Amino acid sequence: MKASINVTIWNEYRHEQKNEEVQRVYPDGIHRAIGAGMPDDFELTYATLDEAEHGLSEEVLAKTDVLIWWGHMAHGEVQDEIVERVHARVMAGMGLVVLHSGHFSKIFKKLMGTGCDLKWRVAGPKGERERLWVVRPGHPIVAGIGEYIELESEEMYGEHFDIPQPDELVFTSWFQGGEVFRSGCCWHRGQGKIFYFRPGHETFPTYFNADVRRVIANGVRWAAPVDSAAPVRGKAKPLEQI
Amino acid sequence: MKASINVTIWNEYRHEQKNEEVQRVYPDGIHRAIGAGMPDDFELTYATLDEAEHGLSEEVLAKTDVLIWWGHMAHGEVQDEIVERVHARVMAGMGLVVLHSGHFSKIFKKLMGTGCDLKWRVAGPKGERERLWVVRPGHPIVAGIGEYIELESEEMYGEHFDIPQPDELVFTSWFQGGEVFRSGCCWHRGQGKIFYFRPGHETFPTYFNADVRRVIANGVRWAAPVDSAAPVRGKAKPLEQI
Amino acid sequence: MKASINVTIWNEYRHEQKNEEVQRVYPDGIHRAIGAGMPDDFELTYATLDEAEHGLSEEVLAKTDVLIWWGHMAHGEVQDEIVERVHARVMAGMGLVVLHSGHFSKIFKKLMGTGCDLKWRVAGPKGERERLWVVRPGHPIVAGIGEYIELESEEMYGEHFDIPQPDELVFTSWFQGGEVFRSGCCWHRGQGKIFYFRPGHETFPTYFNADVRRVIANGVRWAAPVDSAAPVRGKAKPLEQI
Amino acid sequence: MKASINVTIWNEYRHEQKNEEVQRVYPDGIHRAIGAGMPDDFELTYATLDEAEHGLSEEVLAKTDVLIWWGHMAHGEVQDEIVERVHARVMAGMGLVVLHSGHFSKIFKKLMGTGCDLKWRVAGPKGERERLWVVRPGHPIVAGIGEYIELESEEMYGEHFDIPQPDELVFTSWFQGGEVFRSGCCWHRGQGKIFYFRPGHETFPTYFNADVRRVIANGVRWAAPVDSAAPVRGKAKPLEQI
Repeated sequence: MKASINVTIWNEYRHEQKNEEVQRVYPDGIHRAIGAGMPDDFELTYATLDEAEHGLSEEVLAKTDVLIWWGHMAHGEVQDEIVERVHARVMAGMGLVVLHSGHFSKIFKKLMGTGCDLKWRVAGPKGERERLWVVRPGHPIVAGIGEYIELESEEMYGEHFDIPQPDELVFTSWFQGGEVFRSGCCWHRGQGKIFYFRPGHETFPTYFNADVRRVIANGVRWAAPVDSAAPVRGKAKPLEQI
Repeated sequence: MKASINVTIWNEYRHEQKNEEVQRVYPDGIHRAIGAGMPDDFELTYATLDEAEHGLSEEVLAKTDVLIWWGHMAHGEVQDEIVERVHARVMAGMGLVVLHSGHFSKIFKKLMGTGCDLKWRVAGPKGERERLWVVRPGHPIVAGIGEYIELESEEMYGEHFDIPQPDELVFTSWFQGGEVFRSGCCWHRGQGKIFYFRPGHETFPTYFNADVRRVIANGVRWAAPVDSAAPVRGKAKPLEQI
Repeated sequence: MKASINVTIWNEYRHEQKNEEVQRVYPDGIHRAIGAGMPDDFELTYATLDEAEHGLSEEVLAKTDVLIWWGHMAHGEVQDEIVERVHARVMAGMGLVVLHSGHFSKIFKKLMGTGCDLKWRVAGPKGERERLWVVRPGHPIVAGIGEYIELESEEMYGEHFDIPQPDELVFTSWFQGGEVFRSGCCWHRGQGKIFYFRPGHETFPTYFNADVRRVIANGVRWAAPVDSAAPVRGKAKPLEQI
Repeated sequence: MKASINVTIWNEYRHEQKNEEVQRVYPDGIHRAIGAGMPDDFELTYATLDEAEHGLSEEVLAKTDVLIWWGHMAHGEVQDEIVERVHARVMAGMGLVVLHSGHFSKIFKKLMGTGCDLKWRVAGPKGERERLWVVRPGHPIVAGIGEYIELESEEMYGEHFDIPQPDELVFTSWFQGGEVFRSGCCWHRGQGKIFYFRPGHETFPTYFNADVRRVIANGVRWAAPVDSAAPVRGKAKPLEQI
């Protein structure tokens, strides 16, 4: 088994620079807050939208085992070429952990093949209560987690969430305002694994929550590549006499 | 229940006009051969690549319950705008039956989110034997079908087939040359349903086979839209007091 | 297609005879209340625990297309022989719609292979509010249903619900007390289809609700048998030369 | 992460003692042949049918992380009490790897809820060729495996295999005689994980094959328990004011 996992944390990193309220919560950016919660055996790289190639050069991606993605207000600014590059890496086995508003990112929509829209609400400066119930005990992503995670202040995301039925549904959220949401979802695409995890509105300190951090770390471990043979496709000679 | 199902059969319709061997097998085009095998309660419309808007105007699609798709050599000529239009209709509930080499069409790849590549071989003018085994008895798509369908002459498609795991796997094929293939696959995307059915190389008379026609007709019935409420998404007021 | 569906509604029918509160709500029994809400093209048969063979003779089951099951306080009194008989019929294609406390019936547990336990609460004589969100628009079981069904008074069922991941998850419930529940679940077992639908505590008039009745009727249609070949198993001669 | 995995290899161990042909292939029993192929970080325990409690006492099971099961001619002799004990452990998180004819064991049938029957043939003393195709590259169970595993001499198992649709389908087999089979299947039940792996007829040296051993070892790692909270069920107080 590999000694460590190479994790690249990608963040749009705009709200934190433009909005004082967000800056107070995440002074070093959401990516740094997430990174601060990752375990020691992860080798971390940070990448943001406004870097060259959004910080996702061929070199960076080639050595990335799992990519974490947070974006919101500038999905449209992510270059199609980089989206294709990330997609190709997922097909080849790179894991992808998509957080919160990343549901509307180009890469997530491309991988899902659906609209990925949902219902949402920020109920004032305090948001509302979310309770993420574990619906799949025994799944590696809930290692160390109790029967639910409670977040006092969050944005609401509600059904219908326009995604393919998850291969594995791990969390389902209850919201104070009356909605539910499939909030921890796993898919396999190509040789890669994708984990979508709902919480993390930019005005709330969700990425400092110990359980949220643990779930993200577990998601990274679950999504890490497996050393399996590259699939063979294309024109093929028969293996038996015809 | 609706008295009839509006089915649009889309065919690239190039091989039949360019290649004498194909013309002999499908003198009226693959679309007409498929249509000739559909039951009386289907209202059929035909559409082909070289028509204006590929025969898939907003009007045609709006009244289509299920779209059948056959394409191969000219996937790249299908306009992106029409692909988006078909995708939007699937999200809104239109069924889609993708046949054979349609696995590499723009619309199928967009809906799957994966590469959709596979292994293939045409083993001389007689092809090779394929046996499509029913792995899901009791599924509506195998109504009236025995334990397998045997096709004496077909192109081979082999694993690995780069698709998301089907929501429902209905057929798995055995090939004479030593390969297997997931040859009848169902997915739900948005409000729509997608059925991929493997057989149908242009040089073999597969679409005159009674079982193949029956499976396509069953696939159409399975994929036909359900009169359910359009999903509600976007900004939402709370249903409970927060 | 068949002109009608033969539906047998099985009810334990004990609460209604022992408990005045229940009697007031369901004076003719839960089975009759459900039956009164079924469409005209269903041929209804009623069966209850205290009849000979629980009303589920070989003859009755042989002509049943879909069996609806409501039980609660007397699961243990259902004879194992009858459970085996129902199981064999599901394997052969009979549909099964399991309601509410039927989650703990012998037949449901046998079909699931898991414990089928859950969390529950009756919050006083008025119960609490349940909102069943549609998480699979376009599914036949939600035909004619809006984005959710709201029930003002119900028993709470909460996660973790100890079931295999549903093949198709159709509803997820929000409860006033803070829980969620996978409340509309589909599975395929053998040639049969199983639909579990959560609502229906005996002290609340849930089975008079138009949406609940519609979902049950839709579930019956979805679970109705398909005329597919009986699977072939056992010792087999090769189809190809070895 | 745990330093080692406690693996108990259970074998019926009758063919090897009664049949000279089998004895020549597996002189120390199938369980020892499997064990000899396991990696160093597995702590191995062996258990067989004719031991007290079939070698599966409460103590043995309590410390077992993953149980491997091979049985065939004496499924009926396994005591129901022990089956219940193993089932309870799977619900609580123990992994289970079921091999070959174990498809008809009491424990597998109980966990699946279906008949688990299939088609079979031993084509003479040399059997026939099986090619197990990987249909899920990137899955942990195929780590280190190429695009297929070829076994020159095996018993045929063919569809229809009467199981619930696997949560993850990893291998599909091609057989020389014309059949296919879902030969590597994963399910989640309770907190436990179950992996069924087809090969291993008692008269063929399949369990000495390096790839087969690797898949079994990978299956054990995949099925090993996760340290997640025990699910909470039963009567529950509300978390919110009703």
